[in-house]
Amino acid sequence: MYDCIVIGGGPAAVSAAINLKALGKNFMWVGNGSSKKAAAAELVRNYPGLPDITGRQLVWTFENHAASLGIERMDGLVTAVYDLSGRFAVAVGTDTYETATVILCTGVASAKLIPGEEEFLGRGVSYCATCDGFLYKGKTIGVLCTDKQFEHEAEYLASIAGKVYFMPMYKNCEVFTPNAEVVLKMPKEISGGMKAEKLVFADGELPVDGIFILRASLSPSVLLRGLAEEGGHIAADRQCRTNIPGVFAAGDCTGRPYQYAKAVGEGNIAAHSAAEYLAEKK
Amino acid sequence: MYDCIVIGGGPAAVSAAINLKALGKNFMWVGNGSSKKAAAAELVRNYPGLPDITGRQLVWTFENHAASLGIERMDGLVTAVYDLSGRFAVAVGTDTYETATVILCTGVASAKLIPGEEEFLGRGVSYCATCDGFLYKGKTIGVLCTDKQFEHEAEYLASIAGKVYFMPMYKNCEVFTPNAEVVLKMPKEISGGMKAEKLVFADGELPVDGIFILRASLSPSVLLRGLAEEGGHIAADRQCRTNIPGVFAAGDCTGRPYQYAKAVGEGNIAAHSAAEYLAEKK
Repeated sequence: MYDCIVIGGGPAAVSAAINLKALGKNFMWVGNGSSKKAAAAELVRNYPGLPDITGRQLVWTFENHAASLGIERMDGLVTAVYDLSGRFAVAVGTDTYETATVILCTGVASAKLIPGEEEFLGRGVSYCATCDGFLYKGKTIGVLCTDKQFEHEAEYLASIAGKVYFMPMYKNCEVFTPNAEVVLKMPKEISGGMKAEKLVFADGELPVDGIFILRASLSPSVLLRGLAEEGGHIAADRQCRTNIPGVFAAGDCTGRPYQYAKAVGEGNIAAHSAAEYLAEKK
Repeated sequence: MYDCIVIGGGPAAVSAAINLKALGKNFMWVGNGSSKKAAAAELVRNYPGLPDITGRQLVWTFENHAASLGIERMDGLVTAVYDLSGRFAVAVGTDTYETATVILCTGVASAKLIPGEEEFLGRGVSYCATCDGFLYKGKTIGVLCTDKQFEHEAEYLASIAGKVYFMPMYKNCEVFTPNAEVVLKMPKEISGGMKAEKLVFADGELPVDGIFILRASLSPSVLLRGLAEEGGHIAADRQCRTNIPGVFAAGDCTGRPYQYAKAVGEGNIAAHSAAEYLAEKK
Protein backbone atom coordinates (compact mmCIF):
# COMPACT_ATOMS: atom_id res chain seq x y z
CA MET A 1 0.00 0.00 0.00
CA TYR A 2 1.23 3.48 -0.84
CA ASP A 3 1.47 6.28 1.72
CA CYS A 4 -0.04 8.59 -0.85
CA ILE A 5 -1.27 8.78 -4.43
CA VAL A 6 -1.09 12.15 -6.18
CA ILE A 7 -3.63 12.57 -8.97
CA GLY A 8 -3.07 15.20 -11.66
CA GLY A 9 -0.54 16.46 -14.17
CA GLY A 10 -0.20 20.16 -13.35
CA PRO A 11 2.00 22.32 -11.10
CA ALA A 12 0.16 21.42 -7.88
CA ALA A 13 0.79 17.73 -8.52
CA VAL A 14 4.48 18.32 -9.32
CA SER A 15 4.86 20.28 -6.10
CA ALA A 16 3.05 17.61 -4.05
CA ALA A 17 5.24 14.87 -5.56
CA ILE A 18 8.49 16.80 -4.95
CA ASN A 19 7.50 17.40 -1.35
CA LEU A 20 6.39 13.82 -0.69
CA LYS A 21 9.79 12.77 -1.97
CA ALA A 22 11.50 15.26 0.33
CA LEU A 23 9.40 13.90 3.20
CA GLY A 24 10.53 10.35 2.42
CA LYS A 25 7.07 9.00 1.60
CA ASN A 26 6.27 5.96 -0.51
CA PHE A 27 3.98 7.46 -3.11
CA MET A 28 2.65 7.12 -6.64
CA TRP A 29 2.00 10.01 -9.01
CA VAL A 30 -0.54 9.47 -11.72
CA GLY A 31 -1.63 12.01 -14.28
CA ASN A 32 -3.22 12.06 -17.68
CA GLY A 33 -0.16 13.55 -19.38
CA SER A 34 1.18 17.01 -18.66
CA SER A 35 -1.20 19.83 -17.96
CA LYS A 36 -2.18 21.40 -21.27
CA LYS A 37 -3.65 24.36 -19.45
CA ALA A 38 -0.44 25.05 -17.52
CA ALA A 39 1.58 24.90 -20.75
CA ALA A 40 -0.76 27.23 -22.61
CA ALA A 41 0.43 30.52 -21.08
CA GLU A 42 2.38 32.61 -23.56
CA LEU A 43 4.42 34.42 -20.95
CA VAL A 44 4.53 33.92 -17.19
CA ARG A 45 6.03 36.82 -15.26
CA ASN A 46 4.80 36.15 -11.75
CA TYR A 47 6.20 32.78 -10.72
CA PRO A 48 8.90 33.91 -8.29
CA GLY A 49 12.39 32.82 -9.33
CA LEU A 50 11.65 32.16 -13.00
CA PRO A 51 10.96 35.52 -14.64
CA ASP A 52 9.74 35.81 -18.24
CA ILE A 53 9.17 32.16 -18.98
CA THR A 54 6.62 30.56 -21.26
CA GLY A 55 4.02 28.21 -19.81
CA ARG A 56 5.57 25.38 -21.81
CA GLN A 57 9.06 26.11 -20.41
CA LEU A 58 7.70 26.36 -16.90
CA VAL A 59 5.99 22.97 -17.14
CA TRP A 60 9.17 21.53 -18.64
CA THR A 61 11.23 23.02 -15.79
CA PHE A 62 8.85 21.64 -13.15
CA GLU A 63 8.83 18.18 -14.69
CA ASN A 64 12.60 18.12 -15.01
CA HIS A 65 12.88 19.07 -11.37
CA ALA A 66 10.75 16.08 -10.42
CA ALA A 67 12.71 13.81 -12.77
CA SER A 68 16.01 15.01 -11.28
CA LEU A 69 14.82 13.65 -7.93
CA GLY A 70 13.99 10.28 -9.50
CA ILE A 71 10.24 10.88 -9.47
CA GLU A 72 8.27 9.27 -12.28
CA ARG A 73 4.71 10.06 -13.28
CA MET A 74 2.51 7.24 -14.41
CA ASP A 75 0.50 8.42 -17.39
CA GLY A 76 -3.06 7.23 -17.09
CA LEU A 77 -6.60 8.34 -16.45
CA VAL A 78 -7.90 7.84 -12.94
CA THR A 79 -11.51 6.77 -13.34
CA ALA A 80 -12.45 6.36 -9.69
CA VAL A 81 -11.23 6.71 -6.12
CA TYR A 82 -12.95 4.38 -3.67
CA ASP A 83 -13.12 5.30 0.00
CA LEU A 84 -12.52 2.00 1.86
CA SER A 85 -12.67 3.73 5.28
CA GLY A 86 -9.13 4.25 6.43
CA ARG A 87 -7.61 3.58 3.02
CA PHE A 88 -8.40 4.26 -0.60
CA ALA A 89 -8.41 2.36 -3.88
CA VAL A 90 -7.46 4.35 -6.95
CA ALA A 91 -8.56 2.93 -10.30
CA VAL A 92 -6.26 3.69 -13.24
CA GLY A 93 -7.53 1.96 -16.37
CA THR A 94 -7.98 -1.69 -15.41
CA ASP A 95 -5.57 -1.50 -12.47
CA THR A 96 -6.29 -0.55 -8.89
CA TYR A 97 -3.79 0.80 -6.36
CA GLU A 98 -4.24 1.05 -2.61
CA THR A 99 -3.11 4.02 -0.62
CA ALA A 100 -3.48 5.56 2.83
CA THR A 101 -3.93 9.08 1.50
CA VAL A 102 -4.85 10.83 -1.74
CA ILE A 103 -3.88 14.29 -3.00
CA LEU A 104 -6.29 15.53 -5.68
CA CYS A 105 -4.73 18.01 -8.11
CA THR A 106 -7.35 17.59 -10.77
CA GLY A 107 -7.55 21.15 -12.05
CA VAL A 108 -10.71 22.98 -12.92
CA ALA A 109 -13.44 20.56 -13.93
CA SER A 110 -14.43 22.38 -17.11
CA ALA A 111 -16.72 19.63 -18.37
CA LYS A 112 -20.34 19.89 -17.48
CA LEU A 113 -21.98 16.57 -16.72
CA ILE A 114 -24.66 15.39 -19.12
CA PRO A 115 -28.00 14.92 -17.37
CA GLY A 116 -28.20 11.21 -16.49
CA GLU A 117 -24.43 10.73 -16.65
CA GLU A 118 -23.88 10.48 -12.92
CA GLU A 119 -27.13 8.57 -12.39
CA PHE A 120 -26.22 5.80 -14.85
CA LEU A 121 -22.49 5.67 -14.04
CA GLY A 122 -21.66 1.96 -13.68
CA ARG A 123 -25.08 1.08 -15.12
CA GLY A 124 -24.40 1.61 -18.80
CA VAL A 125 -22.23 4.72 -18.51
CA SER A 126 -18.47 4.22 -18.38
CA TYR A 127 -15.39 6.44 -18.49
CA CYS A 128 -12.96 3.65 -19.32
CA ALA A 129 -12.80 1.83 -22.67
CA THR A 130 -10.20 -0.72 -21.57
CA CYS A 131 -12.05 -1.46 -18.32
CA ASP A 132 -15.58 -1.98 -19.60
CA GLY A 133 -15.33 -2.37 -23.39
CA PHE A 134 -15.55 -6.16 -23.24
CA LEU A 135 -19.06 -5.89 -21.77
CA TYR A 136 -20.38 -4.63 -25.11
CA LYS A 137 -19.24 -7.32 -27.53
CA GLY A 138 -21.40 -7.10 -30.63
CA LYS A 139 -23.65 -4.51 -29.00
CA THR A 140 -24.60 -0.92 -29.83
CA ILE A 141 -22.80 1.81 -27.94
CA GLY A 142 -22.48 5.57 -27.94
CA VAL A 143 -18.99 7.06 -27.61
CA LEU A 144 -18.70 10.68 -26.57
CA CYS A 145 -15.16 11.82 -27.22
CA THR A 146 -13.92 15.14 -25.81
CA ASP A 147 -10.44 15.15 -27.32
CA LYS A 148 -8.57 13.72 -30.27
CA GLN A 149 -6.18 11.95 -27.87
CA PHE A 150 -8.92 9.43 -27.07
CA GLU A 151 -9.59 8.34 -30.66
CA HIS A 152 -7.56 5.15 -30.21
CA GLU A 153 -9.86 4.23 -27.32
CA ALA A 154 -12.86 4.85 -29.56
CA GLU A 155 -11.35 2.59 -32.22
CA TYR A 156 -10.69 -0.07 -29.63
CA LEU A 157 -14.35 0.09 -28.62
CA ALA A 158 -15.43 -0.12 -32.28
CA SER A 159 -13.35 -3.30 -32.64
CA ILE A 160 -15.47 -4.94 -29.92
CA ALA A 161 -18.93 -3.44 -30.37
CA GLY A 162 -21.36 -4.25 -33.16
CA LYS A 163 -22.27 -0.63 -33.82
CA VAL A 164 -20.83 2.68 -32.53
CA TYR A 165 -22.41 6.11 -32.54
CA PHE A 166 -19.34 8.26 -32.37
CA MET A 167 -19.79 11.84 -31.10
CA PRO A 168 -16.60 13.91 -31.36
CA MET A 169 -16.49 17.20 -29.45
CA TYR A 170 -13.66 18.56 -31.63
CA LYS A 171 -12.95 19.19 -35.29
CA ASN A 172 -11.16 16.93 -37.78
CA CYS A 173 -12.32 13.66 -36.36
CA GLU A 174 -10.32 10.78 -37.79
CA VAL A 175 -12.21 7.74 -36.64
CA PHE A 176 -12.97 5.66 -39.73
CA THR A 177 -14.15 2.17 -38.93
CA PRO A 178 -16.98 0.59 -40.91
CA ASN A 179 -19.23 0.14 -37.86
CA ALA A 180 -18.75 3.69 -36.48
CA GLU A 181 -21.35 6.27 -37.44
CA VAL A 182 -20.22 9.83 -36.72
CA VAL A 183 -22.96 11.87 -35.06
CA LEU A 184 -22.22 15.59 -35.11
CA LYS A 185 -24.41 16.66 -32.24
CA MET A 186 -24.38 16.35 -28.47
CA PRO A 187 -26.93 14.40 -26.45
CA LYS A 188 -28.90 16.52 -24.04
CA GLU A 189 -29.67 13.60 -21.81
CA ILE A 190 -28.92 9.96 -21.06
CA SER A 191 -32.11 8.13 -20.16
CA GLY A 192 -33.20 4.64 -19.26
CA GLY A 193 -34.69 2.48 -16.55
CA MET A 194 -32.51 0.15 -14.48
CA LYS A 195 -29.67 1.01 -16.82
CA ALA A 196 -28.90 3.52 -19.56
CA GLU A 197 -30.97 2.78 -22.66
CA LYS A 198 -30.82 5.75 -24.96
CA LEU A 199 -29.18 9.00 -25.95
CA VAL A 200 -31.68 11.82 -26.15
CA PHE A 201 -31.01 14.63 -28.63
CA ALA A 202 -32.91 17.83 -29.28
CA ASP A 203 -34.34 16.25 -32.40
CA GLY A 204 -34.62 12.58 -31.58
CA GLU A 205 -33.18 9.57 -29.76
CA LEU A 206 -30.70 6.78 -30.34
CA PRO A 207 -31.16 3.46 -28.54
CA VAL A 208 -27.88 2.13 -27.06
CA ASP A 209 -26.69 -0.67 -24.80
CA GLY A 210 -23.98 1.46 -23.26
CA ILE A 211 -22.31 4.88 -23.37
CA PHE A 212 -18.61 5.68 -23.06
CA ILE A 213 -17.61 9.20 -22.16
CA LEU A 214 -13.93 9.78 -22.91
CA ARG A 215 -12.75 12.83 -20.99
CA ALA A 216 -9.35 14.12 -19.86
CA SER A 217 -10.59 14.89 -16.37
CA LEU A 218 -13.55 13.91 -14.32
CA SER A 219 -15.51 16.03 -11.94
CA PRO A 220 -14.08 15.47 -8.44
CA SER A 221 -17.40 14.41 -6.96
CA VAL A 222 -17.81 11.82 -9.72
CA LEU A 223 -14.25 10.65 -9.12
CA LEU A 224 -14.79 10.27 -5.39
CA ARG A 225 -18.29 9.94 -4.00
CA GLY A 226 -19.02 12.03 -0.95
CA LEU A 227 -16.36 14.65 -1.61
CA ALA A 228 -17.70 18.05 -0.59
CA GLU A 229 -17.69 20.81 -3.18
CA GLU A 230 -18.20 24.54 -2.86
CA GLY A 231 -19.03 26.71 -5.83
CA GLY A 232 -17.81 24.13 -8.32
CA HIS A 233 -14.52 23.54 -6.50
CA ILE A 234 -13.37 20.96 -3.99
CA ALA A 235 -13.97 22.37 -0.51
CA ALA A 236 -10.62 22.46 1.30
CA ASP A 237 -9.32 24.20 4.41
CA ARG A 238 -6.05 26.09 4.85
CA GLN A 239 -4.24 22.79 5.37
CA CYS A 240 -5.69 21.55 2.04
CA ARG A 241 -7.78 18.96 3.88
CA THR A 242 -11.09 17.98 2.30
CA ASN A 243 -14.15 16.72 4.16
CA ILE A 244 -12.85 13.14 3.81
CA PRO A 245 -10.01 12.35 6.25
CA GLY A 246 -6.94 11.29 4.28
CA VAL A 247 -8.01 13.12 1.12
CA PHE A 248 -6.28 16.42 0.33
CA ALA A 249 -6.70 18.82 -2.59
CA ALA A 250 -4.39 21.37 -4.18
CA GLY A 251 -4.27 23.72 -7.13
CA ASP A 252 -7.01 25.00 -9.41
CA CYS A 253 -9.44 22.30 -8.21
CA THR A 254 -9.70 24.11 -4.84
CA GLY A 255 -10.59 27.47 -6.37
CA ARG A 256 -9.22 30.81 -7.46
CA PRO A 257 -6.76 32.39 -8.04
CA TYR A 258 -5.83 30.00 -10.88
CA GLN A 259 -2.11 30.66 -10.58
CA TYR A 260 1.10 28.63 -10.79
CA ALA A 261 2.41 29.95 -7.45
CA LYS A 262 -0.85 29.25 -5.66
CA ALA A 263 -0.96 25.70 -7.07
CA VAL A 264 2.67 25.04 -6.14
CA GLY A 265 2.10 26.42 -2.64
CA GLU A 266 -0.93 24.22 -2.09
CA GLY A 267 0.88 21.15 -3.43
CA ASN A 268 3.51 21.80 -0.78
CA ILE A 269 0.91 22.22 1.97
CA ALA A 270 -1.07 19.12 0.90
CA ALA A 271 2.08 16.97 0.99
CA HIS A 272 2.90 18.18 4.49
CA SER A 273 -0.69 17.67 5.64
CA ALA A 274 -0.70 14.12 4.23
CA ALA A 275 2.56 13.38 6.07
CA GLU A 276 1.09 14.75 9.27
CA TYR A 277 -2.05 12.64 8.81
CA LEU A 278 0.07 9.53 8.27
CA ALA A 279 2.12 10.27 11.40
CA GLU A 280 -1.03 10.68 13.49
CA LYS A 281 -2.50 7.39 12.22
CA LYS A 282 0.56 5.41 13.24
CA MET B 1 -2.37 56.94 -0.99
CA TYR B 2 -1.05 53.54 -2.00
CA ASP B 3 -3.29 50.70 -3.11
CA CYS B 4 -1.24 48.38 -0.96
CA ILE B 5 1.81 48.25 1.31
CA VAL B 6 3.63 44.93 1.59
CA ILE B 7 5.52 44.48 4.85
CA GLY B 8 8.34 41.93 5.06
CA GLY B 9 11.55 40.84 3.40
CA GLY B 10 11.01 37.14 2.69
CA PRO B 11 9.62 35.01 -0.15
CA ALA B 12 5.96 35.76 0.65
CA ALA B 13 6.64 39.49 0.35
CA VAL B 14 8.55 39.06 -2.92
CA SER B 15 5.66 37.04 -4.34
CA ALA B 16 3.07 39.57 -3.17
CA ALA B 17 5.08 42.43 -4.71
CA ILE B 18 5.57 40.61 -8.03
CA ASN B 19 1.86 39.89 -8.23
CA LEU B 20 0.76 43.40 -7.26
CA LYS B 21 3.01 44.62 -10.08
CA ALA B 22 1.41 42.14 -12.50
CA LEU B 23 -2.01 43.34 -11.34
CA GLY B 24 -1.05 46.97 -12.06
CA LYS B 25 -1.38 48.18 -8.49
CA ASN B 26 0.29 51.25 -6.98
CA PHE B 27 2.11 49.72 -4.05
CA MET B 28 5.04 50.09 -1.70
CA TRP B 29 7.18 47.26 -0.42
CA VAL B 30 8.98 47.76 2.85
CA GLY B 31 11.16 45.22 4.61
CA ASN B 32 13.90 45.20 7.17
CA GLY B 33 16.52 43.89 4.72
CA SER B 34 16.37 40.47 3.11
CA SER B 35 15.06 37.53 5.08
CA LYS B 36 17.97 36.00 6.99
CA LYS B 37 15.88 32.95 7.72
CA ALA B 38 15.07 32.35 4.05
CA ALA B 39 18.76 32.67 3.14
CA ALA B 40 19.89 30.31 5.88
CA ALA B 41 18.93 27.03 4.19
CA GLU B 42 21.95 25.08 3.05
CA LEU B 43 20.17 23.27 0.25
CA VAL B 44 16.61 23.67 -1.01
CA ARG B 45 15.34 20.78 -3.10
CA ASN B 46 11.59 21.33 -2.97
CA TYR B 47 10.92 24.72 -4.52
CA PRO B 48 9.49 23.61 -7.89
CA GLY B 49 11.49 24.88 -10.84
CA LEU B 50 14.74 25.60 -8.99
CA PRO B 51 16.21 22.26 -7.93
CA ASP B 52 19.27 22.02 -5.68
CA ILE B 53 19.68 25.66 -4.82
CA THR B 54 21.00 27.23 -1.63
CA GLY B 55 18.74 29.43 0.44
CA ARG B 56 21.02 32.37 -0.34
CA GLN B 57 20.79 31.73 -4.10
CA LEU B 58 17.03 31.34 -3.90
CA VAL B 59 16.63 34.67 -2.09
CA TRP B 60 18.97 36.28 -4.62
CA THR B 61 16.93 34.79 -7.50
CA PHE B 62 13.65 36.01 -6.00
CA GLU B 63 14.99 39.50 -5.42
CA ASN B 64 16.44 39.72 -8.91
CA HIS B 65 13.09 38.67 -10.32
CA ALA B 66 11.44 41.56 -8.50
CA ALA B 67 14.20 43.97 -9.56
CA SER B 68 13.83 42.86 -13.21
CA LEU B 69 10.23 44.08 -13.05
CA GLY B 70 11.35 47.44 -11.69
CA ILE B 71 10.19 46.70 -8.14
CA GLU B 72 12.20 48.30 -5.36
CA ARG B 73 12.09 47.41 -1.70
CA MET B 74 12.40 50.17 0.85
CA ASP B 75 14.64 48.98 3.65
CA GLY B 76 13.23 50.00 6.97
CA LEU B 77 11.56 48.73 10.09
CA VAL B 78 7.80 49.10 10.28
CA THR B 79 7.04 50.02 13.86
CA ALA B 80 3.26 50.31 13.64
CA VAL B 81 0.25 49.94 11.38
CA TYR B 82 -2.70 52.13 12.33
CA ASP B 83 -6.21 51.14 11.32
CA LEU B 84 -7.91 54.40 10.28
CA SER B 85 -11.13 52.60 9.33
CA GLY B 86 -11.12 52.20 5.57
CA ARG B 87 -7.43 53.02 5.19
CA PHE B 88 -4.21 52.36 7.05
CA ALA B 89 -1.17 54.34 8.13
CA VAL B 90 2.12 52.46 8.13
CA ALA B 91 4.92 53.92 10.25
CA VAL B 92 8.45 53.34 8.95
CA GLY B 93 10.98 55.06 11.15
CA THR B 94 9.81 58.66 11.44
CA ASP B 95 7.73 58.53 8.24
CA THR B 96 4.14 57.46 7.77
CA TYR B 97 2.56 56.15 4.57
CA GLU B 98 -1.13 55.80 3.82
CA THR B 99 -2.57 52.81 2.04
CA ALA B 100 -5.91 51.20 1.26
CA THR B 101 -4.66 47.67 2.01
CA VAL B 102 -1.80 45.96 3.82
CA ILE B 103 -0.18 42.60 3.19
CA LEU B 104 1.68 41.33 6.27
CA CYS B 105 4.56 38.98 5.46
CA THR B 106 6.26 39.37 8.79
CA GLY B 107 7.53 35.84 9.25
CA VAL B 108 7.45 33.87 12.46
CA ALA B 109 7.50 36.18 15.43
CA SER B 110 10.26 34.34 17.26
CA ALA B 111 10.68 36.97 19.93
CA LYS B 112 8.69 36.53 23.07
CA LEU B 113 7.37 39.75 24.50
CA ILE B 114 8.80 40.84 27.81
CA PRO B 115 6.09 41.16 30.46
CA GLY B 116 5.11 44.83 30.51
CA GLU B 117 6.40 45.49 26.98
CA GLU B 118 3.00 45.73 25.33
CA GLU B 119 1.46 47.48 28.35
CA PHE B 120 4.02 50.32 28.31
CA LEU B 121 4.38 50.60 24.53
CA GLY B 122 4.21 54.32 23.76
CA ARG B 123 4.53 55.06 27.46
CA GLY B 124 8.23 54.62 27.93
CA VAL B 125 8.71 51.60 25.69
CA SER B 126 9.71 52.24 22.07
CA TYR B 127 10.82 50.15 19.09
CA CYS B 128 12.26 53.04 17.13
CA ALA B 129 15.46 54.91 18.07
CA THR B 130 15.14 57.55 15.35
CA CYS B 131 11.45 58.19 16.17
CA ASP B 132 11.59 58.56 19.92
CA GLY B 133 15.26 59.02 20.84
CA PHE B 134 14.96 62.78 21.15
CA LEU B 135 12.49 62.34 24.03
CA TYR B 136 15.30 61.08 26.26
CA LYS B 137 17.90 63.83 26.02
CA GLY B 138 20.18 63.57 29.03
CA LYS B 139 18.01 60.87 30.57
CA THR B 140 18.62 57.27 31.59
CA ILE B 141 17.42 54.57 29.22
CA GLY B 142 17.61 50.82 28.77
CA VAL B 143 18.39 49.47 25.28
CA LEU B 144 17.60 45.86 24.56
CA CYS B 145 19.32 44.88 21.33
CA THR B 146 18.44 41.58 19.61
CA ASP B 147 20.94 41.77 16.77
CA LYS B 148 24.30 43.30 15.96
CA GLN B 149 22.71 45.15 13.02
CA PHE B 150 21.03 47.53 15.47
CA GLU B 151 24.22 48.63 17.23
CA HIS B 152 24.32 51.90 15.28
CA GLU B 153 20.86 52.70 16.62
CA ALA B 154 22.08 51.97 20.13
CA GLU B 155 25.01 54.33 19.59
CA TYR B 156 22.67 56.97 18.26
CA LEU B 157 20.61 56.65 21.45
CA ALA B 158 23.75 56.85 23.58
CA SER B 159 24.66 60.12 21.85
CA ILE B 160 21.38 61.62 23.09
CA ALA B 161 20.79 59.99 26.46
CA GLY B 162 22.69 60.75 29.65
CA LYS B 163 23.12 57.10 30.58
CA VAL B 164 22.40 53.85 28.71
CA TYR B 165 22.03 50.35 30.10
CA PHE B 166 22.86 48.32 27.01
CA MET B 167 21.60 44.71 26.94
CA PRO B 168 22.89 42.79 23.90
CA MET B 169 21.18 39.47 23.10
CA TYR B 170 24.15 38.25 21.03
CA LYS B 171 27.86 37.69 21.46
CA ASN B 172 30.73 40.04 20.60
CA CYS B 173 28.95 43.25 21.40
CA GLU B 174 30.84 46.23 20.01
CA VAL B 175 29.10 49.18 21.58
CA PHE B 176 31.76 51.24 23.33
CA THR B 177 30.55 54.67 24.34
CA PRO B 178 31.52 56.15 27.69
CA ASN B 179 27.91 56.50 28.90
CA ALA B 180 26.80 52.97 27.92
CA GLU B 181 27.01 50.30 30.58
CA VAL B 182 26.76 46.78 29.15
CA VAL B 183 24.39 44.62 31.18
CA LEU B 184 24.76 40.92 30.36
CA LYS B 185 21.38 39.73 31.54
CA MET B 186 17.81 40.01 30.36
CA PRO B 187 15.07 41.81 32.24
CA LYS B 188 12.22 39.59 33.30
CA GLU B 189 9.76 42.46 33.43
CA ILE B 190 9.21 46.12 32.64
CA SER B 191 7.34 47.80 35.46
CA GLY B 192 6.06 51.23 36.32
CA GLY B 193 2.99 53.33 37.01
CA MET B 194 1.59 55.68 34.37
CA LYS B 195 4.73 54.97 32.38
CA ALA B 196 7.64 52.53 32.39
CA GLU B 197 9.93 53.24 35.29
CA LYS B 198 12.24 50.29 35.77
CA LEU B 199 13.75 47.12 34.40
CA VAL B 200 13.25 44.21 36.75
CA PHE B 201 15.88 41.45 36.77
CA ALA B 202 15.99 38.18 38.67
CA ASP B 203 18.53 39.76 41.04
CA GLY B 204 17.54 43.40 41.18
CA GLU B 205 16.18 46.43 39.36
CA LEU B 206 17.43 49.33 37.28
CA PRO B 207 15.50 52.61 37.26
CA VAL B 208 15.06 54.03 33.73
CA ASP B 209 13.20 56.86 32.01
CA GLY B 210 12.59 54.81 28.90
CA ILE B 211 13.32 51.47 27.24
CA PHE B 212 14.17 50.85 23.61
CA ILE B 213 13.70 47.34 22.24
CA LEU B 214 15.55 46.94 18.95
CA ARG B 215 14.14 43.92 17.13
CA ALA B 216 14.14 42.80 13.49
CA SER B 217 10.45 41.93 13.59
CA LEU B 218 7.59 42.79 15.83
CA SER B 219 4.79 40.56 16.94
CA PRO B 220 1.88 41.13 14.51
CA SER B 221 -0.58 42.02 17.24
CA VAL B 222 1.82 44.65 18.57
CA LEU B 223 2.31 45.96 15.03
CA LEU B 224 -1.41 46.24 14.41
CA ARG B 225 -3.82 46.40 17.33
CA GLY B 226 -6.89 44.22 17.01
CA LEU B 227 -5.34 41.71 14.60
CA ALA B 228 -6.59 38.24 15.47
CA GLU B 229 -4.04 35.54 16.17
CA GLU B 230 -4.36 31.80 16.46
CA GLY B 231 -1.72 29.66 18.10
CA GLY B 232 0.95 32.34 17.78
CA HIS B 233 0.22 33.03 14.11
CA ILE B 234 -1.92 35.59 12.32
CA ALA B 235 -5.37 34.07 11.77
CA ALA B 236 -6.05 34.07 8.02
CA ASP B 237 -8.55 32.30 5.79
CA ARG B 238 -7.89 30.51 2.48
CA GLN B 239 -7.94 33.87 0.70
CA CYS B 240 -5.26 35.14 3.14
CA ARG B 241 -7.75 37.59 4.63
CA THR B 242 -7.31 38.49 8.31
CA ASN B 243 -10.07 39.58 10.68
CA ILE B 244 -9.46 43.22 9.64
CA PRO B 245 -10.93 44.06 6.21
CA GLY B 246 -8.15 45.28 3.92
CA VAL B 247 -5.41 43.48 5.86
CA PHE B 248 -4.01 40.28 4.38
CA ALA B 249 -1.29 37.95 5.61
CA ALA B 250 1.04 35.54 3.82
CA GLY B 251 3.97 33.26 4.56
CA ASP B 252 5.33 31.93 7.82
CA CYS B 253 3.34 34.50 9.83
CA THR B 254 0.12 32.61 8.98
CA GLY B 255 1.43 29.25 10.21
CA ARG B 256 3.00 25.98 9.14
CA PRO B 257 4.39 24.54 6.96
CA TYR B 258 7.28 27.04 7.02
CA GLN B 259 8.17 26.52 3.36
CA TYR B 260 9.28 28.68 0.44
CA ALA B 261 6.55 27.31 -1.87
CA LYS B 262 3.81 27.85 0.68
CA ALA B 263 4.99 31.41 1.33
CA VAL B 264 5.20 32.19 -2.38
CA GLY B 265 1.74 30.71 -2.97
CA GLU B 266 0.22 32.77 -0.20
CA GLY B 267 1.94 35.94 -1.41
CA ASN B 268 0.24 35.32 -4.75
CA ILE B 269 -3.15 34.73 -3.13
CA ALA B 270 -2.85 37.77 -0.83
CA ALA B 271 -2.05 40.06 -3.79
CA HIS B 272 -5.09 38.78 -5.69
CA SER B 273 -7.31 39.13 -2.62
CA ALA B 274 -6.09 42.70 -2.06
CA ALA B 275 -6.86 43.53 -5.71
CA GLU B 276 -10.32 42.01 -5.34
CA TYR B 277 -10.93 44.01 -2.16
CA LEU B 278 -9.86 47.23 -3.92
CA ALA B 279 -12.17 46.49 -6.84
CA GLU B 280 -15.11 45.92 -4.51
CA LYS B 281 -14.49 49.17 -2.63
CA LYS B 282 -14.61 51.26 -5.80
